[in-house]
Amino acid sequence: MLTVYGMKLSGNCYKVQLALEQLGLPYRWVEVNSAAGETRTAEYLRMNPNGKVPLLEVTEGQYLAESNAILCYLADGSALLPSNRWQRAQLMQWLFFEQYSHEPYIAVARFIANWLPSDHPRQAELPRLRERGRQALAVMEQQLSLQAFIAGADYSIGDIALFAYTHVATDGGFDMSVYPNIQRWLSRVRAQPGFGELGN
Amino acid sequence: MLTVYGMKLSGNCYKVQLALEQLGLPYRWVEVNSAAGETRTAEYLRMNPNGKVPLLEVTEGQYLAESNAILCYLADGSALLPSNRWQRAQLMQWLFFEQYSHEPYIAVARFIANWLPSDHPRQAELPRLRERGRQALAVMEQQLSLQAFIAGADYSIGDIALFAYTHVATDGGFDMSVYPNIQRWLSRVRAQPGFGELGN
Repeated sequence: MLTVYGMKLSGNCYKVQLALEQLGLPYRWVEVNSAAGETRTAEYLRMNPNGKVPLLEVTEGQYLAESNAILCYLADGSALLPSNRWQRAQLMQWLFFEQYSHEPYIAVARFIANWLPSDHPRQAELPRLRERGRQALAVMEQQLSLQAFIAGADYSIGDIALFAYTHVATDGGFDMSVYPNIQRWLSRVRAQPGFGELGN
Repeated sequence: MLTVYGMKLSGNCYKVQLALEQLGLPYRWVEVNSAAGETRTAEYLRMNPNGKVPLLEVTEGQYLAESNAILCYLADGSALLPSNRWQRAQLMQWLFFEQYSHEPYIAVARFIANWLPSDHPRQAELPRLRERGRQALAVMEQQLSLQAFIAGADYSIGDIALFAYTHVATDGGFDMSVYPNIQRWLSRVRAQPGFGELGN
């Protein structure tokens, strides 16, 4: 059975959970508290030398790291990952956009605003993180004015990846009322089969 | 013909150039000066709303952004992108590692150290960027002690992606002499067919 080493509060881990639920794959969840140093122990670093969650154990001793790589692996051969070359290319574009231009601002702003003390020096990063985060949301808003889902007409792991931190962006101080197309898209994602109670 | 909108000094753009050369694909290069604001003009934002290079124009009006998504698209069906599901999963892991845990530290340290004035306030970011960059290099060093190329026994676009900024990491103030496996890997990458004079 697939095993996920993850932290429930992490959006990157939530992506993996959502994909597993939507694909109907059985899995075992091992909660790892990254904040308490549990991803930096010798035992954990043997599984993932980069010391991060989520981590997927595919079979005993075979590990896969990086949330979006895990999504690609799980969705391989399913409707969540297009078989058409150009559609797949566009999906990959949005997966890399998420990790490079979206998550480092929106997820990090959420972390600082919600989990660090109000007098922590990293609070000073918030204005820049929010500015960059708004740029990412503006790019999504434009894309979602043109099509129903982020990488085209069909729902894909690109939507799962971007839903993870977009649906909780208000926690990071982002005013989501100015993105009507993103709001409609969030509803469309929540209406997908297998969505269940996750992320509501 | 494929058109690349890129900036020669950018490692992310260099990846695309190296893949095109190694795959023997003809292409046209359009130099775009990101530092002079050329990726933020209305005309450029119509091509790439995220305002970044590189950008691949596949056919007239069909654009693909994100360097590693471009690598996946170009290498699709070639030996540079494995057809085996597990091998492909591991490759994807390293592509996301590159954009999330490597490039934001090693490329940005290089940029600050080489292109910003010595009294620029961003110079203060260098110690943290170097610490995180060394963590990424240590992860690569360990991986390359186990196998010849980053995602397995065979050369792939994972090597192209990680070569781009690793081979110029000394520019960012990284002491590469402490990574013997990375050094041997850099030589193996340079020995690949089609490498030519690029990046030497």
